[in-house]
Amino acid sequence: MSRTVKLAVIPGDGIGPEVIAEAVAVLDAVTEGSGLSFEKTHFSLGADRYLATGDVLTDDDLEAIKSHDAILLGAVGGVPGDPRLAGANIERGLLLKLRFSLDHYVNLRPTTLFPGIASPLANPGDVDFVVVREGTEGPYVGNGGVIRQGTPHEIANEVSVNTAYGVERVVRYAFEQAGQRRRKLTLVHKTNVLTFAGSLWKRIVDAVAAEHPDVTVDYLHVDAATIFLVTDPARFDVIVTDNLFGDILTDLAAAISGGIGLAASGNINPAGAFPSMFEPVHGSAPDIAGQQKADPTAAILSTALLLRHLGEKELAGRVEQAVTADLAARTGAARTTSEIGAAIAARVAQ
Amino acid sequence: MSRTVKLAVIPGDGIGPEVIAEAVAVLDAVTEGSGLSFEKTHFSLGADRYLATGDVLTDDDLEAIKSHDAILLGAVGGVPGDPRLAGANIERGLLLKLRFSLDHYVNLRPTTLFPGIASPLANPGDVDFVVVREGTEGPYVGNGGVIRQGTPHEIANEVSVNTAYGVERVVRYAFEQAGQRRRKLTLVHKTNVLTFAGSLWKRIVDAVAAEHPDVTVDYLHVDAATIFLVTDPARFDVIVTDNLFGDILTDLAAAISGGIGLAASGNINPAGAFPSMFEPVHGSAPDIAGQQKADPTAAILSTALLLRHLGEKELAGRVEQAVTADLAARTGAARTTSEIGAAIAARVAQ
Ligand SMILES: CC(C)[C@H](C(=O)O)[C@@H](O)C(=O)O
Ligand SMILES: CC(C)[C@H](C(=O)O)[C@@H](O)C(=O)O
Repeated sequence: MSRTVKLAVIPGDGIGPEVIAEAVAVLDAVTEGSGLSFEKTHFSLGADRYLATGDVLTDDDLEAIKSHDAILLGAVGGVPGDPRLAGANIERGLLLKLRFSLDHYVNLRPTTLFPGIASPLANPGDVDFVVVREGTEGPYVGNGGVIRQGTPHEIANEVSVNTAYGVERVVRYAFEQAGQRRRKLTLVHKTNVLTFAGSLWKRIVDAVAAEHPDVTVDYLHVDAATIFLVTDPARFDVIVTDNLFGDILTDLAAAISGGIGLAASGNINPAGAFPSMFEPVHGSAPDIAGQQKADPTAAILSTALLLRHLGEKELAGRVEQAVTADLAARTGAARTTSEIGAAIAARVAQ
Repeated sequence: MSRTVKLAVIPGDGIGPEVIAEAVAVLDAVTEGSGLSFEKTHFSLGADRYLATGDVLTDDDLEAIKSHDAILLGAVGGVPGDPRLAGANIERGLLLKLRFSLDHYVNLRPTTLFPGIASPLANPGDVDFVVVREGTEGPYVGNGGVIRQGTPHEIANEVSVNTAYGVERVVRYAFEQAGQRRRKLTLVHKTNVLTFAGSLWKRIVDAVAAEHPDVTVDYLHVDAATIFLVTDPARFDVIVTDNLFGDILTDLAAAISGGIGLAASGNINPAGAFPSMFEPVHGSAPDIAGQQKADPTAAILSTALLLRHLGEKELAGRVEQAVTADLAARTGAARTTSEIGAAIAARVAQ
């Protein structure tokens, strides 16, 4: 049986192209002879494209991307403070526009402390949880505005929008994940202050929990959740939370488990109406771009999430095992981006 | 010279009364013979009062509190999930109502890793920074609402309100703090996503920075800030941020520096139009209430912030030194709340 998957590849800016080159090489290596192959289309999007053409993401780009089965993205964003980029918000105009337009309502971010990886925590314990971050609502919607800008009377508002429709679908997904894992789900919010949104999240979690009596449900305020992430991260299995809290918690989660050089993520549309997008959590790191200093592991682990999303569990497992073995074998000697990628590619091919 | 300060004391719920008893004893001990004395009024507010009377904070309570020079608060909040409290939001109706009504626009939260105190971090380094959290705006304003509640079409919004007036005054305060410290200020926000509010914060920090050429100014997205708080907390001197980000970062800051049992805070109205309020960052911890298990150190350190706010630097320093000495002498043997309080009170009296 052979299967061809149309993959949109968006290397992006900074270290994006370097880490994506390795991720693609690992994908090619692991699928070699498997019957699965990727038909790749390369999209030149990000700060460089904006500087060259003035476009961030056109309707044509978006339509072309939609015609693919999945997306692999490196990182987007130019040099911070570059005056030529002052007018563009690459993050909102490209990354968030993709997540919103492609209805990526699940932002899936697993955190594992791999054997041999140092944590900044003295006693991290067994770190193995996944954050299910809502991806299409909350304070990220871009609703809000400003009046009297630049005057002493300026007022700038941001509106967090939360719908039963949007919350329920991501909560259901999180419960399904918990059912396949250690059956523990923690809702993180700030219900005592954000009472309107908090009440909606709480009621929906309670309602869906009633359908999953096998899953233990817990609640933490977001501030308390950060405490447990550094004092007892092993307590977490599945965390479900809103777009902004999920952004904050997943960077912290990455930090305690070896850094954002290892953090993978999937922006998923579970029903498959639109292609899902897989990307490392890290940014474009323009300061080290083009120097072969970036760790491609997060991008490579993102391909494992991609493979799992495609139902290719065995291939996904092989990528994860190759990464685990590579991390365990690290000696501390510096390796280039390509050396790390090649080492992992060699292991998946074995 | 003698000076009498009218102090409103709100012990609150759970462990609040226990820790406040020790804080008051330390205040009495340190001021003994100093010419400064406190005329204390005890306010019975919190879950117990609500259960007894149905009131959270009446206009009369508020007026009575306003007639004081300062407030010392323990902790408020009943047992989570207590059905009799379902209708009351003690946090919003009491704690936040006080902060907003008394225009506590600076929420000052110092973080120090005291000698002898264990951090969950393997290599915490020299942790000594202060978070200046905005206290009267942002997502905490309670603006927002819900439509179609309880239906599949429910929409719940939260509005973050940010004004030039509100941001500028807290930013100015933060720069003043930086000027008296290591002259480094870090703005934390999420300017790439919350573009309306982020732009306001960024422009105001840039404008005030121009008046403080001696202060080095840095910017971090809130997600990245959590990474640095666990990988390199020594880099921070003064962090200025909004109400919600400040809430999250200060719990994390407490966690890396010995826990919320040691974290003190001041809710300050710098101009003195209203009494400022000093409180430990921890909550009411109903599960250990009345058992003499709570550490009163955060409440005691909050009295040092109170004394400093009153201009009593020498007395504030004595409380801080007594706490530092007590912490350094801790052997790991369990002590009761009163034993810790008495030990610190004995040291300030020396
Ligand atoms: C770049 C930024 C818009 C993005 C986010 O906030 O979601 C990033 O921090 C992430 O976590 O993927
Ligand atoms: C109890 C709660 C309303 C409060 C807050 O969110 O400000 C607390 O977490 C704090 O940090 O003082």
